[in-house]
Amino acid sequence: TSIGSIAAGFFFAFFVVMCCLTVCSGTPDPSQREVMIRQEVSRQTGGSVQLTGAEQRLDWHLNKLKKQEIAAEQFLPATHFFKARPLIQKSPIFSLLQKMPKGAALHIHSSSLVSVDWLVKNITYRPNCYICFTWGRSLRFLFSSRHPFPSWDCPYWRLLKTLRGNMPDPTDFDHSLMRNLTLFTEDPDTAYPSQDAVWEKFETAFLAISGLVTYAPVFRDFLYKGLEQLLHDNIMYLEVRTGLSRTYELDGSIHDKSWSLRTYQEVTRQFVAEHPDFLGVRLIISVHRALSVSEVKAAVKEAIQMQKDFPEIVAGFDLVGREDRGRPLWFFKDALSLPAELGIKLPYFFHAGETDLEGTEVDENILDALLFNTQRIGHGYALTHHPLAKELSKKGNVAVEVCPISNQVLKLVSDLRNHPAAVLMSEGHPMVVSSDDPSLFGTTGLSYDFYEMFVGIGGLRANLGTLKELAINSLRYSSLPPQLKERGLSMWQRTWDKFIAENS
Amino acid sequence: TSIGSIAAGFFFAFFVVMCCLTVCSGTPDPSQREVMIRQEVSRQTGGSVQLTGAEQRLDWHLNKLKKQEIAAEQFLPATHFFKARPLIQKSPIFSLLQKMPKGAALHIHSSSLVSVDWLVKNITYRPNCYICFTWGRSLRFLFSSRHPFPSWDCPYWRLLKTLRGNMPDPTDFDHSLMRNLTLFTEDPDTAYPSQDAVWEKFETAFLAISGLVTYAPVFRDFLYKGLEQLLHDNIMYLEVRTGLSRTYELDGSIHDKSWSLRTYQEVTRQFVAEHPDFLGVRLIISVHRALSVSEVKAAVKEAIQMQKDFPEIVAGFDLVGREDRGRPLWFFKDALSLPAELGIKLPYFFHAGETDLEGTEVDENILDALLFNTQRIGHGYALTHHPLAKELSKKGNVAVEVCPISNQVLKLVSDLRNHPAAVLMSEGHPMVVSSDDPSLFGTTGLSYDFYEMFVGIGGLRANLGTLKELAINSLRYSSLPPQLKERGLSMWQRTWDKFIAENS
Ligand SMILES: [Zn+2]
Ligand SMILES: [Zn+2]
Repeated sequence: TSIGSIAAGFFFAFFVVMCCLTVCSGTPDPSQREVMIRQEVSRQTGGSVQLTGAEQRLDWHLNKLKKQEIAAEQFLPATHFFKARPLIQKSPIFSLLQKMPKGAALHIHSSSLVSVDWLVKNITYRPNCYICFTWGRSLRFLFSSRHPFPSWDCPYWRLLKTLRGNMPDPTDFDHSLMRNLTLFTEDPDTAYPSQDAVWEKFETAFLAISGLVTYAPVFRDFLYKGLEQLLHDNIMYLEVRTGLSRTYELDGSIHDKSWSLRTYQEVTRQFVAEHPDFLGVRLIISVHRALSVSEVKAAVKEAIQMQKDFPEIVAGFDLVGREDRGRPLWFFKDALSLPAELGIKLPYFFHAGETDLEGTEVDENILDALLFNTQRIGHGYALTHHPLAKELSKKGNVAVEVCPISNQVLKLVSDLRNHPAAVLMSEGHPMVVSSDDPSLFGTTGLSYDFYEMFVGIGGLRANLGTLKELAINSLRYSSLPPQLKERGLSMWQRTWDKFIAENS
Repeated sequence: TSIGSIAAGFFFAFFVVMCCLTVCSGTPDPSQREVMIRQEVSRQTGGSVQLTGAEQRLDWHLNKLKKQEIAAEQFLPATHFFKARPLIQKSPIFSLLQKMPKGAALHIHSSSLVSVDWLVKNITYRPNCYICFTWGRSLRFLFSSRHPFPSWDCPYWRLLKTLRGNMPDPTDFDHSLMRNLTLFTEDPDTAYPSQDAVWEKFETAFLAISGLVTYAPVFRDFLYKGLEQLLHDNIMYLEVRTGLSRTYELDGSIHDKSWSLRTYQEVTRQFVAEHPDFLGVRLIISVHRALSVSEVKAAVKEAIQMQKDFPEIVAGFDLVGREDRGRPLWFFKDALSLPAELGIKLPYFFHAGETDLEGTEVDENILDALLFNTQRIGHGYALTHHPLAKELSKKGNVAVEVCPISNQVLKLVSDLRNHPAAVLMSEGHPMVVSSDDPSLFGTTGLSYDFYEMFVGIGGLRANLGTLKELAINSLRYSSLPPQLKERGLSMWQRTWDKFIAENS
């Protein structure tokens, strides 16, 4: 974002024109063609990363593996992830990506941090867990020391232990619980014929999960387990979007939000102490875009206060919920201008452009996110349709958080080769990979999303340099203060070197 | 492609940075926001077209209609065209697009110029038409004065008239013939599970059609009928890709290629004489990319000769056939360099980038097409993954021929909102709309493709200015000599004004 970069742009444009004048005469010079091909490759994400000898060996191996996957009858990134998952698990590229130190996960929502498997097999087996079936045939859970009161949508609460005991096949029953807590299904096309259908299930599953994980003792274990699963996937740092729902105890008493913040801090400290390879957790306080302007104003003020009280752990603020049905950022302009008016810095990390409604109000969210000085763009799926916003984001070094599986499951795109991040990647646009709602999509960590990014979105052109840059980006574009960022980068480099040594 | 455009780029970059410095402070100025939104809109295809009062009224009406279609339960451009077609036919936007003067069709292959309905109901009812079923269960046709000899793949030829006479339900039989001559089917997902499957049917249908339309007397009527169907869809000029297959007579004698060229010229002259609203036809001589280098060399030499003999009608040269399975342009470099080496100008109109195989040899076709100085790019589906090629194509004013329905049917993209032309459109990249193989996709003319382009790819942002620019582009980027281009543009303007007067 300086005169330097403008000048570079100027000389590049000059070079292209010269190229054209000398080359496009109808008889291209092979060596000049090579220069142009290499130049195009050098522009892509990771295109200017210099690989060591050992890295080049691994790169060559990865390229060979990728050619095999492209030549196979079924190309997995063109297949719905729910069908592709068992096949991806068998991919040698996937095994390598699992082992690879991937840096940070910068776009995960707290409720979907931990696999559904653990939720059902661990949490729902704890004592005092009640379950109810709503009129809409979805589930609610509640831990309580006495039988919960019926409410309008939960007429009959039953002790889960008793209910499970009465089932002919408890394993089968547990599977049916799991199906209620995730979008994962073997026949996604029939289950989710439209964006509306899949978003409805999405929101229902969230409601079911929330009763389980907002029980204070569970909340603590849930976070710890979440960090374990990330570390197990070779991720070293997390920025989590969280609404900071208030947690409850068996007697129905409710903690304030500071309790949740303190718990995040305590669990993180404990986890880091026990796992020195893990760097930490920071929070992006998120409220739903269905709120009113004055409610969002209050939330912004609250976030400012939280940032003051917990500067170590609070990274910033975001609005969540389906953009297509929610209110656009510009609707909340008075709320979002508050920090600047008060002369306070509250970093924004807006979801923006998670839409295919080109040219609507919703479609302006990306530009507005940038105007409100967002630090990163959540999804930015529509960014390539906005050349001006794209330039602003590139010059301002505002990274896009790409969540391939989320976009596919929520029906923005079916064949991931058509994902707009392929365009951004070819231009070397700042970006990171994330998993959005891993447990809802049947994943943990980032390896599956890295697979889709590397094999599908990146195509044959994406190489180990791309992977390396994506991992480094996740720390570079994190909200970590400079010193911690440096520490994170050198921690990452150590594990990376080890990974290369063991796999090249 | 001058210092002027570089300077413009420079000042634009400067403006963006200034904008960011003054605007991105966290409290955006609403009027500056408006400027930026307008500026982004002005960049898109048609974004700088000034609309008259009457045009603005029609634009307003179109916008209202489009909002209704976006709000409907099923969004048609996200639906496979074969399922969407009956619904598109009911769309008031589609009716308007049918009436709209669309200028020229610049990317249509000759064998699929005329609807399958006419092929079966007219041509197959002519005398002396024989049919055979190959071992692979596809069809072949042949007109012959005596019973044709069996060949290895056509063991039993039968007189179609006799066969049809023996059928319990001739209408049903005719429908089964139609199904063999088109890809159209009501259940495309089952019929075509993969790109390989749909391309196989594609090539089989071509073989079946070719026996019908290369019969000399049919060939003449076929061309005439094709021009009728284009004019009926308010298209005034055609550039057709043709292999110039040699035609045959009842006695088995075969005409040379000059006969086909002369026939194109005669039929066109006759049609223009009878329909003064029609401007003409030019040919892009096309050979299959499965040929050897020396065969392509011979074809290039032949095309040079044809261009010399028929300058009025021969526009240039192209290579056709599935890029993913065929040879890349660079493989033919020695053949394609011939004209430049001989100091002769043979304009190229290359298919390039009709692929999702990012990073492969095939994926270099776009760059190579530009290096060989192509006049337009057929499809250019992969162009947005090639930032350098994209810049060359924009600066060189090399238009992309976008064929939305073709790309959807041939399984490059399912939801047309994800078509890369949406990115190109937002950047005002030079482009035209075409239909590639209309009869194979169950269309005639360009209205269906204009519908997908306007409603799906363009989204709510595309307006009447976009449509106007697309129509003008089709003449601007045609191969017509300057004088004829001028004449075409003023003919188009007259019919456009009439269209606006009648529909605003
Ligand atoms: Zn998200
Ligand atoms: Zn074509």
